[in-house]
Formats: sequence, C-alpha cells, structure tokens
Amino acid sequence: MEFYYHPISPPSQAVWMVLNTLGVNYGAKEVQLMKGEQRSKEFLKINPMGKVPALKDGEFTLGESRAIAMYLCTAYEPKFKEGKLYPRDAQEMARVNMLLNLDASFYNKIYDYASIGRMLQRQPLEQENLAPAKEALSNLESLMTEYPYFTGDHPTIADIFILSTVKLLDLTDFNGWSEYPKLMKWKKLMETLPQYEKSMGKPVRETAELLKNL
Amino acid sequence: MEFYYHPISPPSQAVWMVLNTLGVNYGAKEVQLMKGEQRSKEFLKINPMGKVPALKDGEFTLGESRAIAMYLCTAYEPKFKEGKLYPRDAQEMARVNMLLNLDASFYNKIYDYASIGRMLQRQPLEQENLAPAKEALSNLESLMTEYPYFTGDHPTIADIFILSTVKLLDLTDFNGWSEYPKLMKWKKLMETLPQYEKSMGKPVRETAELLKNL
Repeated sequence: MEFYYHPISPPSQAVWMVLNTLGVNYGAKEVQLMKGEQRSKEFLKINPMGKVPALKDGEFTLGESRAIAMYLCTAYEPKFKEGKLYPRDAQEMARVNMLLNLDASFYNKIYDYASIGRMLQRQPLEQENLAPAKEALSNLESLMTEYPYFTGDHPTIADIFILSTVKLLDLTDFNGWSEYPKLMKWKKLMETLPQYEKSMGKPVRETAELLKNL
Repeated sequence: MEFYYHPISPPSQAVWMVLNTLGVNYGAKEVQLMKGEQRSKEFLKINPMGKVPALKDGEFTLGESRAIAMYLCTAYEPKFKEGKLYPRDAQEMARVNMLLNLDASFYNKIYDYASIGRMLQRQPLEQENLAPAKEALSNLESLMTEYPYFTGDHPTIADIFILSTVKLLDLTDFNGWSEYPKLMKWKKLMETLPQYEKSMGKPVRETAELLKNL
C-alpha cells in the first residue's frame, strides 16, 4: 500500500495519523507539490483530481482524505483493532460521518483565514475571514458533549480530522482559544495520543518554522 | 422516522430520493425556512446546525444530508434491497464516499453561481462564479467512466447527490451542457429513475417556477 502525501497538508497529516494508529504497513511517498508533481500524468492516474493525499492499495486507487480514512478503517481496522476509530454500529458511524462532513466545511472556513497558500506567498492574513473561522470554532465547541472526544470516550477518525483542521490556527498568531474551553481541553487531550507527534505535531511545527523563515 | 426537509433545498431532494428509493416508511415534515423554523429550539434539538435536511429515527437524530443518506442505507437497505445504493464492499463503498466528498465541494462551486439565495432576492447571478461552476462540471465529466453511472451499472447515492447538485443549473439559463456529453447523457438517464420525478424533478420545476414569478 502506497500513501501519497505532503507533510504541509493538513488532510495528509490526518490520513497519516489514521494509518499510524491502525498500524498497517504502508510506503509513504512525498509528492513534490512545489514542482507540480501532483499534476503529472503518473500521479493523475492515482488521483485524477491532482491532490494529496491519495492512496494506492494494490490496483485500487483513491483520493479525498476523508474517503481514504473511511476506507482504511473499513478494510483494515477489523484485522488490527476493535473498530473504534470508525464505529460499525449504524448510528455511531452516522455521527462520525456527520462530523466528517461538517469538518470539511469548517476546514474551508478556517483555511480561508489561516491560508497556507497566502502565508507561503508572504501575504498578510485576510482579517475579514477571521469571523467565519471563529464561527466554525463556535460550532465545534457546541458539538462537544459531556464526553472527552466528539462522539464518546475514545477518539475516532472525526476527532483526527477536526484536530488537523483546528491546528491550522497554530500556524498563525491566533490567541482566542479561551473562548472555546471544551475544544481547547479536547485539543490538548488529542495532542497526547501516541501517533500524534509523528503524524501531525512535528509536521505542523515544521510548517510553522518554514513560514516564519520565508 | 421523521424526515425534516424543504422542497427548495437540493440536499433535501437528494435525501428524499434516497428515502423513496429505499422504500422505507417515514413522515415528511416541511421546515418553514422563511419563518426561521430551522432556528427554533425544537428543531435545533434535531439538528444543532439549524439546517435541513435532518432526520429523527426513534431517539436518534442526525444532520448533514450525505451522512443521512449513508445512515439510511447502512441501517435500512439490507432489509429492502441488495445494498446497491450504497455498496458494502470496502473498495466500491470508498469510491462512492470519494464522490460524495467531491460532490460537496462541487455543490459549493455550482451554488456560488446558481445561488438560490440570490435568485430569491432577485439579484443577478455573479458571472465571475460561472467559470468555477464549469470547472466542477468538467471535473464531473472527467470522473465518468465507460459505465452509465458514476461507479458502475447501477446508480448509487453518489449519483443521486451529484444529480441534485447539477440540477441547480436548471434554475438558471445555463445552456452549456453540450460541453459535457457524458454528464449530459448520465443526467438524462438519472431523470428516468422511478423516484426521480416525485423527489427531485417536481420540486426543482416548482422552484424554477417560483423564481421566475417573484
């Protein structure tokens, strides 16, 4: 199984953390985004949309980070774990799917503010996009329940994707976390998970370092 | 089971078509969007995001159209059909999930042009949003294969959602379909499905009629 990714890409980090949590064997191939490798004929065979992350599992190829994470759990979690990352019960699974769908729109809102593209070009962040980003954080805060994680007492792929989304703000000087106490507590808890540092902590820190030194 | 919807909402139409195709029993409750019922305390208990469609199945509540469709198939398709609307094979399911994820972003791009909100306010369409909408159509055209439907020889929930997305253009004077011959052929085929007229054909025609007579 080959995992095509770039360490700067939050959806790549999320899939990476899923792969490492599942403990499946895979080869990691960094796609040279700066050189346009994502638009090469070879890569478009793997993901016709020309985006990372992507997956090649035997002859099967797949794009779209959330679909990749769901696939990895559906195909491999039973062999390794108890189906906790992606529950099999229809209603529990539905709640994870709902959060993944919401996360996709929260990601767009937060990225519009914390735009890696703009930062790479040394452009200032667009301040008018801060309010929609904060609205996404408020929505996430309101979706937290009495449980430590979004859907219960253990993390699922929804928690992993939401973490990669809110960590975009770690690349900026955003300091409004105290307005979202449940989310802040959850974020700190997520950052103690065994596969976090390798898959997300380190790449986000290195991205922040890169952006600071452009 | 209660289905909360509004006939003008494409994601509501898509879930409606899934419900009708599955043949499950449900009560349909039209949410009075114009009166702000989606923000009522009662409705927020069903979907805290305050959006249609939403579902209440016993004590279980769920928002987000695509998650609802996946849930309906996971929970009810085995009892009624052969799992064709939402395949159970991990790789076939992954391809449907990938298309659903892509459709969510295509929907945003096409809606930015064919904005029901703007049309309800009798504002002209934003012509600079036409190019991104056409890019979404090109992407969809490129995702079609030699099969009549997006993933094979029968329609899945991905086909149903993509249909509700591209039908946004039926509300406008868009006449560029001939640039997307595979997609045009697929759209015509989808419009012959037994549950199409009731769930999508009629509500889209009535929406177009409403917008024309504002």
